[in-house]
Amino acid sequence: MGKGGKSHEEDEQEENMAVWIVGINTLKIQPFKLPPLGPHHVRIRMKAVGICGSDVHILKTLRIADFVMKEPVVTGHECAGIVEEAGSEVKNLVPGDRVALEPAISCRRCDLCKEGRYNLCPERKILSLSPVHGALAQQIVHPADLCFKLPDNVSLEEGAMCEPLSVAVHACRRADIGPETNVLVMGAGPIGLVTMLAARAFRAPRIVIVDVDEHRLSVAKDLGADRVVKVSTNMQDIPEEVERICKVMGAAVHVSFDCVGFSKTMSTALGATRAGGKVCLIGLGHDEMTIPLTPAAAREVDVVGCFTYTNTWPLCIELLRSGKIDVKPLITHRFGFSQEEVEEAFETSARGGNAIKVMFNL
Amino acid sequence: MGKGGKSHEEDEQEENMAVWIVGINTLKIQPFKLPPLGPHHVRIRMKAVGICGSDVHILKTLRIADFVMKEPVVTGHECAGIVEEAGSEVKNLVPGDRVALEPAISCRRCDLCKEGRYNLCPERKILSLSPVHGALAQQIVHPADLCFKLPDNVSLEEGAMCEPLSVAVHACRRADIGPETNVLVMGAGPIGLVTMLAARAFRAPRIVIVDVDEHRLSVAKDLGADRVVKVSTNMQDIPEEVERICKVMGAAVHVSFDCVGFSKTMSTALGATRAGGKVCLIGLGHDEMTIPLTPAAAREVDVVGCFTYTNTWPLCIELLRSGKIDVKPLITHRFGFSQEEVEEAFETSARGGNAIKVMFNL
Amino acid sequence: MGKGGKSHEEDEQEENMAVWIVGINTLKIQPFKLPPLGPHHVRIRMKAVGICGSDVHILKTLRIADFVMKEPVVTGHECAGIVEEAGSEVKNLVPGDRVALEPAISCRRCDLCKEGRYNLCPERKILSLSPVHGALAQQIVHPADLCFKLPDNVSLEEGAMCEPLSVAVHACRRADIGPETNVLVMGAGPIGLVTMLAARAFRAPRIVIVDVDEHRLSVAKDLGADRVVKVSTNMQDIPEEVERICKVMGAAVHVSFDCVGFSKTMSTALGATRAGGKVCLIGLGHDEMTIPLTPAAAREVDVVGCFTYTNTWPLCIELLRSGKIDVKPLITHRFGFSQEEVEEAFETSARGGNAIKVMFNL
Amino acid sequence: MGKGGKSHEEDEQEENMAVWIVGINTLKIQPFKLPPLGPHHVRIRMKAVGICGSDVHILKTLRIADFVMKEPVVTGHECAGIVEEAGSEVKNLVPGDRVALEPAISCRRCDLCKEGRYNLCPERKILSLSPVHGALAQQIVHPADLCFKLPDNVSLEEGAMCEPLSVAVHACRRADIGPETNVLVMGAGPIGLVTMLAARAFRAPRIVIVDVDEHRLSVAKDLGADRVVKVSTNMQDIPEEVERICKVMGAAVHVSFDCVGFSKTMSTALGATRAGGKVCLIGLGHDEMTIPLTPAAAREVDVVGCFTYTNTWPLCIELLRSGKIDVKPLITHRFGFSQEEVEEAFETSARGGNAIKVMFNL
Repeated sequence: MGKGGKSHEEDEQEENMAVWIVGINTLKIQPFKLPPLGPHHVRIRMKAVGICGSDVHILKTLRIADFVMKEPVVTGHECAGIVEEAGSEVKNLVPGDRVALEPAISCRRCDLCKEGRYNLCPERKILSLSPVHGALAQQIVHPADLCFKLPDNVSLEEGAMCEPLSVAVHACRRADIGPETNVLVMGAGPIGLVTMLAARAFRAPRIVIVDVDEHRLSVAKDLGADRVVKVSTNMQDIPEEVERICKVMGAAVHVSFDCVGFSKTMSTALGATRAGGKVCLIGLGHDEMTIPLTPAAAREVDVVGCFTYTNTWPLCIELLRSGKIDVKPLITHRFGFSQEEVEEAFETSARGGNAIKVMFNL
Repeated sequence: MGKGGKSHEEDEQEENMAVWIVGINTLKIQPFKLPPLGPHHVRIRMKAVGICGSDVHILKTLRIADFVMKEPVVTGHECAGIVEEAGSEVKNLVPGDRVALEPAISCRRCDLCKEGRYNLCPERKILSLSPVHGALAQQIVHPADLCFKLPDNVSLEEGAMCEPLSVAVHACRRADIGPETNVLVMGAGPIGLVTMLAARAFRAPRIVIVDVDEHRLSVAKDLGADRVVKVSTNMQDIPEEVERICKVMGAAVHVSFDCVGFSKTMSTALGATRAGGKVCLIGLGHDEMTIPLTPAAAREVDVVGCFTYTNTWPLCIELLRSGKIDVKPLITHRFGFSQEEVEEAFETSARGGNAIKVMFNL
Repeated sequence: MGKGGKSHEEDEQEENMAVWIVGINTLKIQPFKLPPLGPHHVRIRMKAVGICGSDVHILKTLRIADFVMKEPVVTGHECAGIVEEAGSEVKNLVPGDRVALEPAISCRRCDLCKEGRYNLCPERKILSLSPVHGALAQQIVHPADLCFKLPDNVSLEEGAMCEPLSVAVHACRRADIGPETNVLVMGAGPIGLVTMLAARAFRAPRIVIVDVDEHRLSVAKDLGADRVVKVSTNMQDIPEEVERICKVMGAAVHVSFDCVGFSKTMSTALGATRAGGKVCLIGLGHDEMTIPLTPAAAREVDVVGCFTYTNTWPLCIELLRSGKIDVKPLITHRFGFSQEEVEEAFETSARGGNAIKVMFNL
Repeated sequence: MGKGGKSHEEDEQEENMAVWIVGINTLKIQPFKLPPLGPHHVRIRMKAVGICGSDVHILKTLRIADFVMKEPVVTGHECAGIVEEAGSEVKNLVPGDRVALEPAISCRRCDLCKEGRYNLCPERKILSLSPVHGALAQQIVHPADLCFKLPDNVSLEEGAMCEPLSVAVHACRRADIGPETNVLVMGAGPIGLVTMLAARAFRAPRIVIVDVDEHRLSVAKDLGADRVVKVSTNMQDIPEEVERICKVMGAAVHVSFDCVGFSKTMSTALGATRAGGKVCLIGLGHDEMTIPLTPAAAREVDVVGCFTYTNTWPLCIELLRSGKIDVKPLITHRFGFSQEEVEEAFETSARGGNAIKVMFNL
């Protein structure tokens, strides 16, 4: 038995409820049976869970990228909560600790895991991708080394924001952002915005952000973009827009982040980035792109891929603790844990508009 | 005056002749006046000059990539010769030295030059791209630090081959090839072949090479490819071909070199490369590509661009000297320095067929 | 129960014997009870176990570096054997597989493990350092992901040699050895010799090896050193010896490996290495050194530390399989598994002389 | 002739005066004849010149490190001024531009220059090391690409401070400081202080600085150190001090900068830095050190050497412009350009005490 005050068995008596995707556009709050607590695991009472674009995408289509949902699954993977019980071998956590969760579990044994690129582990289990259940539940069981203690001045909601922020931090690391890297961000949606915040925290001296939507750009400006550029969706405007972006930057673009993933955004990024620079592709817009890759390669502009994250939570928490990043303005909507609120929350997130991050408080 | 036996003026009396591109498909042997010999320059009597695909391309179209030829120009940039005269400050060379030439001169003052990425210098002067004249001449003047002394057991023809080999060596460095990197090479043309040879010299344990042409593949096999794969030009065959390539490799593909630069070759390379690997784009086939970049990026397969080379000659010469690379079998045709032979040489190179490298002996 | 033919229980009936260090200079063959077989573990019948200098050092002093032996322990960590039984979740191995063992088990959960530097894991358990038992036993139980299948043309003795070879491979990776790296090796003992072999396999073009002992140097020459240099143990000879080493190299020394670890060897390495190069410290001779570190640092000669290895077995096996490294000449003495032979084996190893690697065949 | 308003000849009529070191502790203001203005050079009217510890050291001993002063030389190398005349090929500067100078000129032709490590160029000419004259003159001639334009909000004195700041920036780059790197700085002298400022600008989350002097530590605290630790000069205190430093850091020390260069500071740095971290040696205290290098290497704590800088001025100027670094508090004393003031300035700098940076205003 673990080291918590109440035993696992007692807690289960209160029946653990969770939000399940049971079919296209169909969410249900249903019981979710917890697995037994292993020696290196903790049981966590969830307190804050954010909705991610991928959650909405799965709800609408029952698929994402190569993944196809085959059976009902508990949704949610941006999350934080309070430790209820710790396994017998857990040393870093005790019941009552407030923690943010890294929501994917790698095998720890394959060569990619052992080389430190565990995000690429072929057996990685990502919370909310069936058959692995997600985090929008009253309680879940998770490996203790993937639960990171929050300092007193970082809220549980901010803890849940470590997940999208981790995507941005991982991209900034892969692109090697620092005090000499002028940054272009394509797309001012939630990922574009956290990427901008992370690039700033990594000390990028100039950041220009680009979008088709005025409102998003004004939010980006408020959150700290140096300059914003409004563009069209028309491929033929690329040359003019590249020129405009470079002019607005007023200096070389060393790294571009494509947080959209369309032929147009990628073409623009490739064109605007200086010789020897990098374009980091984060957005998953379209699988296939038609892009001027050869001329970019002939200027040694490299394309850097990004998939989730490795070892990002400690840094995210430090950036939040020290105030180098403030994610609170990104949380635009909050909902509770009832069937009605759950449905409204997903609709709000799907609708977009002025919603950036929709958060559940459990 | 420099340190050579005969002075510049005396030599000029013999009138320096060179091969000029004077119009589409029009080559002429004409006088080529040498610039004065600077203190850090040497005057070289050319002995071996190879024809590159780009030379042929310019002859046929008067353009290449962004570059447009506006006035007649001396062609040729793969070259080696013998030092005739050395400038007053030259310390590394004396008349009589056999040298291979790095045929591009950077400004040495911009930030890219000073960071060691002088191949990306915006003011770089590449021999044979007008207004900078090339090397297919009896004599040229060149910076001494870009002329590299050949050991006795490396011929002048092999010296000229350092240029295409440098492209391959630069790509192997950028892709970080070593004893743990299984390599896929797309395309068994001249660049594909030298890339294969360089990857082997960098100790790649397994190399698979892919082409549409049986003859090229049999040459590649003879030159040391572990396995060859014949493919079609049909986009729809990509999934089957990726599967076949991976099976033939029998292990993870860590790095792919696309030495062609078409949507199909790049798509195949992206698909065959394992998570966390790299695709190095060397070929300049098409500017625009339609490729599944997003799924590759989501496996953190990076695309690495390559443009010419930096600091590659010493390594190329060492690889030739030590026998780790043998480029002699690549030299399939040889021509002399007469109007007739020059024309035939370019036609032979343009025709392709069993010609790999066409070389002038002056 | 696992997937082997004979169950664990049956095998235990034959009582598993092992070589224990029970006191200073006191070895005993005694029963060694195996732990239960976990789902990710295999049980291995040991076939080849080498003696390492550290094994001898512990036998003589019951300590090594910070480590103090507090209770009797099974010795040996350079090993290979045959899988007898595989745990229920093991997918990469079946009974009968011949395997080489990576003899240290990290926690897989700390930040260093998850960053891929698991050799630095503070909870790492190294076989033969009490309370963790070693491999000089008839059978041991080990994590399956740390057992690497040997190809048919690699013997079990060669498999055991993967351990010292891994030290060298790890050092070559840390020092980034490649076809452009001229290498100096200080010390021609077992580690110096495998370092030389590994540097050659990583394509170092020139390798000079230095020792105080003629015989060792002649062995090094036979094994492929380009040049050897005999030196004294006198500190005052350093300037002359540095000059001689540089002359013998005939080119810049890019990387030096100090496989000894004395003030003299390190001072020589620092002096001989060119500006911008690296000195890799592998030997553990003395804790404290008196060395001219400041002038070396002012030439940006970096000192790179090395501790054991990460992810080296697959590469070592590939290098042995392909014949790029031949470790067989290093195995100079062989012994069986009797009290008498065990004692003689350790004495032979301790004596040094013409013994390089002493190997047990069980 | 260059592009300035007044010609070189006219200016020379006013006779250019400079501060010469003519013997031990003997400074004289004497005429200093300018070389002719080359096409890529500018002539600069000096406005701010700082005194460096190395200037004082040379004045006192006529030597530094391997360098021995053989003839009188103009001193000074931390400098900024106003362009008077620009060579015919200069494109980045016009007369009237306020510029900071990178005071060393590399050959631009050797392999180290072409690899981007031009600080290690064996032919590098460093201003004020005879026979190369320094910058404490009314005017000097300098390559235009080594003169960097100052924005309006960066003063000429701050421009002169780019030189010591460059040492720190180069060290931060070599040590790869970022938002995840906790930093220990050994020594709170001028270099320790700029290193602290630079590490902060590179986003080091925690910085602890160590010195033997209370006053220096209080200055460091005022300038932004998170915590300071007072230590002794006694070698025997190292274990206790390492423990105290680690406790004060309250987290792992990822990188230590030894800005002193004594056995004690280096030993402390090696002991305090966590496994896998780096110790960056900047200080030039003693050539020979007695240090526990082997145990540090066995934890893969690497020692990184630093020599001057490459390509640092643009970043330094950006950090000053954006206010990410404020060097103004470091300028504690100012002097004019008379024999008397010059002598007093050097005495003030030599005396130390509360003097950090002594600056000339010309």
